[in-house]
Amino acid sequence: MNTNKINTLFGQPISVINIGLNSMAASVEAQGVPVVDLDWRPPVEGVPSLQRTRQGVDIESANQEVCSRIKQGRPTLVGMGIARDVIPGMHKQMILHAGPPITWERMCGPQRGAVMGALIYEGLAADEAQAERLAASGAVEFSPCHHHHAVGPMAGVVSASMPVFIIENKTFGNHAYCTQNEGLGKVLRYGGLGPEVYQRLKWMETDLYPTLDRALQTLAEGIDLRSLIAQALHMGDECHNRNRAGTSLFLRAISPALARTNQDNETLARVIEFIDRNDHFFLNLSMPAGKALLEPAEGIAGSSIVTVMARNGTDFGIRLASQPERWFTAPAGQVKGLYFPQFSEQDANPDIGDSTVTETAGYGGMAMAAAPAITKFVGGTPQMALQNTLEMYEITFDEHEHFTIPALNFRGTPCGIDVRKVLETGILPRINTGIAHKKPGIGMVGAGILRAPHQCFQDAFDSLAAL
Amino acid sequence: MNTNKINTLFGQPISVINIGLNSMAASVEAQGVPVVDLDWRPPVEGVPSLQRTRQGVDIESANQEVCSRIKQGRPTLVGMGIARDVIPGMHKQMILHAGPPITWERMCGPQRGAVMGALIYEGLAADEAQAERLAASGAVEFSPCHHHHAVGPMAGVVSASMPVFIIENKTFGNHAYCTQNEGLGKVLRYGGLGPEVYQRLKWMETDLYPTLDRALQTLAEGIDLRSLIAQALHMGDECHNRNRAGTSLFLRAISPALARTNQDNETLARVIEFIDRNDHFFLNLSMPAGKALLEPAEGIAGSSIVTVMARNGTDFGIRLASQPERWFTAPAGQVKGLYFPQFSEQDANPDIGDSTVTETAGYGGMAMAAAPAITKFVGGTPQMALQNTLEMYEITFDEHEHFTIPALNFRGTPCGIDVRKVLETGILPRINTGIAHKKPGIGMVGAGILRAPHQCFQDAFDSLAAL
Repeated sequence: MNTNKINTLFGQPISVINIGLNSMAASVEAQGVPVVDLDWRPPVEGVPSLQRTRQGVDIESANQEVCSRIKQGRPTLVGMGIARDVIPGMHKQMILHAGPPITWERMCGPQRGAVMGALIYEGLAADEAQAERLAASGAVEFSPCHHHHAVGPMAGVVSASMPVFIIENKTFGNHAYCTQNEGLGKVLRYGGLGPEVYQRLKWMETDLYPTLDRALQTLAEGIDLRSLIAQALHMGDECHNRNRAGTSLFLRAISPALARTNQDNETLARVIEFIDRNDHFFLNLSMPAGKALLEPAEGIAGSSIVTVMARNGTDFGIRLASQPERWFTAPAGQVKGLYFPQFSEQDANPDIGDSTVTETAGYGGMAMAAAPAITKFVGGTPQMALQNTLEMYEITFDEHEHFTIPALNFRGTPCGIDVRKVLETGILPRINTGIAHKKPGIGMVGAGILRAPHQCFQDAFDSLAAL
Repeated sequence: MNTNKINTLFGQPISVINIGLNSMAASVEAQGVPVVDLDWRPPVEGVPSLQRTRQGVDIESANQEVCSRIKQGRPTLVGMGIARDVIPGMHKQMILHAGPPITWERMCGPQRGAVMGALIYEGLAADEAQAERLAASGAVEFSPCHHHHAVGPMAGVVSASMPVFIIENKTFGNHAYCTQNEGLGKVLRYGGLGPEVYQRLKWMETDLYPTLDRALQTLAEGIDLRSLIAQALHMGDECHNRNRAGTSLFLRAISPALARTNQDNETLARVIEFIDRNDHFFLNLSMPAGKALLEPAEGIAGSSIVTVMARNGTDFGIRLASQPERWFTAPAGQVKGLYFPQFSEQDANPDIGDSTVTETAGYGGMAMAAAPAITKFVGGTPQMALQNTLEMYEITFDEHEHFTIPALNFRGTPCGIDVRKVLETGILPRINTGIAHKKPGIGMVGAGILRAPHQCFQDAFDSLAAL
């Protein structure tokens, strides 16, 4: 590499605006010249227009049915339970994880950390070394959350004893599951390990869960999550990486029942404090709400709509409504973002977690225009947040009816990622996400934004075209 | 009037854009032609530039001191008490009301209704007829809330037995007071009368107040209202007519203490439900927070900043930081807005209430750009909400540091209405407000937007120029 940096011309400092490939900017930047990298893409050529499958299914009609089902869904928190009792297929030696299927050997650091922590929490291993041996031994069955109607943020690990929320889509009767959110920092889902992680998980099992569960049992109608998400989008949340309003509204909705079923004032106070101190608490409700919305749309032949989008920290995977059993994967990307003090991009694991279910269901990054204040957490500017949403309308098939964005004059959020549009426009879904340390045991290091990788959309498109 | 309507030209329908006086538009509209009435004003001439008072005080410096004090303030909810025990000057035969001073004879319908209801609630009258006679007899002393460091929404009536929030400005040590919010509909502050109104007020005294008070007594630091307002502005509130986020955040802040001081589960549940079912609950905290912010700025000689802006439903009144004892009044205006079913503009009382303290302190209508969803309640469009705030920067001296608007790239809210700028630009403060029925006894009929009347700003300016 040329180490003679040329960053002046006729004595004036050079600045470059790059509207070509990113690699051009990189080579100029290597010369020490500041570069503004315009988000320009060459026009996409050679993408065949795809109106019907080879078997003659009209793709527009199929997509209409898919989006109609997504829009009709009414996800409702109806109760809680222990994973082994309520999640189909769950057993004591099984660990669920985020993203597409993966073996222990290919798991990234935070994913391994979370698995090890779960084995210790379950009492299946006494310490980290034992947990690592057990995980590698083949005695533990790993399975994606998405294969069990479940979703998990970041590592997304669910083990047999963990309490989970049960969400019912009241329109279609299907169910989805998700654990309770632990908070930020050194927590299991970011691969964090240590006594405080296990103790917190135990308290969530012995105190938080029974308290919430008792309250929920008295609410005959459950808690309408579609309504809470719709309101939160009018209160500055996008319901993926900003959930301050959602968490507040959830507390409002459940607090009268918490009071009526109270058995011990101090336990109730701690439960409320735990939720109040974690603005992400609602994420573990907005995610399974998305899962509950999307599953009834699976199995519609000929649809080019994405109904699963998830990452395990090694691979990014998507599934189509028309091929709900098949994963199309590509390497997980690197997140650009804001880091907690002491941490930097050097520490970051690639993109991880099932939380992209929110973008898939039509909020999260899709609704970023509703959440200008999120830029204090994930970086960027309010203007960029607005543009993100406007851009996403280019690759979605429909607009939500129940989820709207006040700043866009109450326009419905972009809904239903269409792989055809992704290929035609060259625009890839934008994702807001947290960032885990790449080593097991450490936990969260920041939050940021990235795009989904192109290849899995290409492969999904090719597969649809071949049917 | 010419009743031959001409609304086509050469067979084409005519549309008119009016950039002249409103009266021009009215005359065209009378012809049945649709008119877009641009909010244009002729340039204001003949307003003398005012840099120093006659006594030589530099107005800019005075205003800088005023705004610096407003921005430094830290209003904090520190406790509660009964009005007669904690509000200076309060006694059993006194009724506080919103806006500038007014006699029974000149009081509007909802103001009279609220006074009559308070006398019944206090046990000083057995029924409405008796209450009316007592009010008119001279045996009751009427005094503006603003003369007692207090503020009240709409009729703003405070009577001796009513519980009030106590707000302390931690920076300057001054206190402000406000009752608890009753909810919407047929409520005392809108002039509503009837058993359900008095029963609700009694429950607020015997159940709501002691429950909240007990909890607050355990919070050594109180509840930081500056922080809650700042957060609420990032969550779609403007903290005058939209308080859904503020109410949510207040519940989050007080709930752990409510749980710890709980004496009866069902009472606690009803208290939380009462707050949860009233998104305006936080208004009665954001208002005295504004009062607590503004009072330390009173008494700065030469300042042209407005520190009080309030209406009693008959008169609109303002006071300047430099003349804090003197009211400048003009007739209260008519509100343009959205009406509840069964009601229309015919039913509306003129503008009423102390809630304009929020605009005076730099949020409410000033921060409407933060609250695009408010337009579902007060009318207008999100674009208009944005423009309202941009316009208010033209007549304010400063921008807040602690209160920011994400959609404007976290710009500080317009702060400190400068009567000089109001006269120079001809732009009058915009106000978001509720609408009361003009007859006593009925209550709330809608919500809307209007501008403050010109004359009181003119009089305040002239008075300052004469000093």
